[in-house]
Amino acid sequence: MKTLSGVNLYVALIHYPVVNKHGETVASAVTNLDLHDIARAACTFGVRALHVITPLADQRELAEKIVRHWTSGPGGERNPKRREALERIRVTASLDDTRSLIAEAHGRPPLVVATCARRYPEACGFGDLAGRLENGTPHLVLFGTAWGLAPELIAASDAVLEPIGGCGDYNHLSVRCAAAIVMDRLMMRRH
Amino acid sequence: MKTLSGVNLYVALIHYPVVNKHGETVASAVTNLDLHDIARAACTFGVRALHVITPLADQRELAEKIVRHWTSGPGGERNPKRREALERIRVTASLDDTRSLIAEAHGRPPLVVATCARRYPEACGFGDLAGRLENGTPHLVLFGTAWGLAPELIAASDAVLEPIGGCGDYNHLSVRCAAAIVMDRLMMRRH
Repeated sequence: MKTLSGVNLYVALIHYPVVNKHGETVASAVTNLDLHDIARAACTFGVRALHVITPLADQRELAEKIVRHWTSGPGGERNPKRREALERIRVTASLDDTRSLIAEAHGRPPLVVATCARRYPEACGFGDLAGRLENGTPHLVLFGTAWGLAPELIAASDAVLEPIGGCGDYNHLSVRCAAAIVMDRLMMRRH
Repeated sequence: MKTLSGVNLYVALIHYPVVNKHGETVASAVTNLDLHDIARAACTFGVRALHVITPLADQRELAEKIVRHWTSGPGGERNPKRREALERIRVTASLDDTRSLIAEAHGRPPLVVATCARRYPEACGFGDLAGRLENGTPHLVLFGTAWGLAPELIAASDAVLEPIGGCGDYNHLSVRCAAAIVMDRLMMRRH
């Protein structure tokens, strides 16, 4: 399996706007294990950073506290591998703030790719997106917590990725597992 | 992507014997989110069942209580998709018990495949194992909690799967994400 050192893939975990089980737009709570699992997968697959996005100040403080514990605090001393993963986390208040940070690093904002368990007619395939990544253009793939990204966020993205799919109709992965599979499929070039 | 309806893939989440960070063999605690995440991925990728294995009676009771809440209890009424996933969970006291249950269903015990973040010289590739699954022979893939499967369990398995690998040296996925990626790679035939 070839590695892609010139690829500038970023991922974001979105806590607002997402939908609840009734399809209403809500802000979800930060979940400790989401940060660990997705940061560890990002580190494994060479993703540049995981942006944890929430407009709620107390939730950003919680996320920052978790990150500090494992990067500059006692957690990181006990477990340097966990520190290495959580050092890839950036906590921001909005997708605009995340886009600005990535634009500062690359001289241009990233192309924003939404993910969704439903299939959109214009969805981009995994192989297509993996190919587009190869020229180094920064891309930011969004993952929704709760019941997924709000439709208005998907509509405002530059592209939407095809669903992961499976062997039948069931398609209800946790955001942790979905994010890990998407990073594996995009970065390990098995398409 | 082709589905493999004739494939008899089982997965097991092992809580003993696993190793702790010092390499000592221990029994780990059952984690609620492991059951949910891995059962949802098993359901998505057409895996026959997730066996949750622990020799500790109180930990089996905890696992059974979680499963009951989501299959016959209020959780399943509120969230039928979660019920569908957790119905694939079997709680057993040992790998021998799991092998016997699978042997009852198929008339022969499964081939047992260990997983490990380290590379074994004799490791089986993802493509090889995906190919072996096609003739319907039952296979049971073991995932270790804590710091992974104990060496004696790996040595006693019929085969060991190659590590997931990544884009560099970092290879520290959560068991939830590792299990999801392995099921995706084996069942979605992208090799």
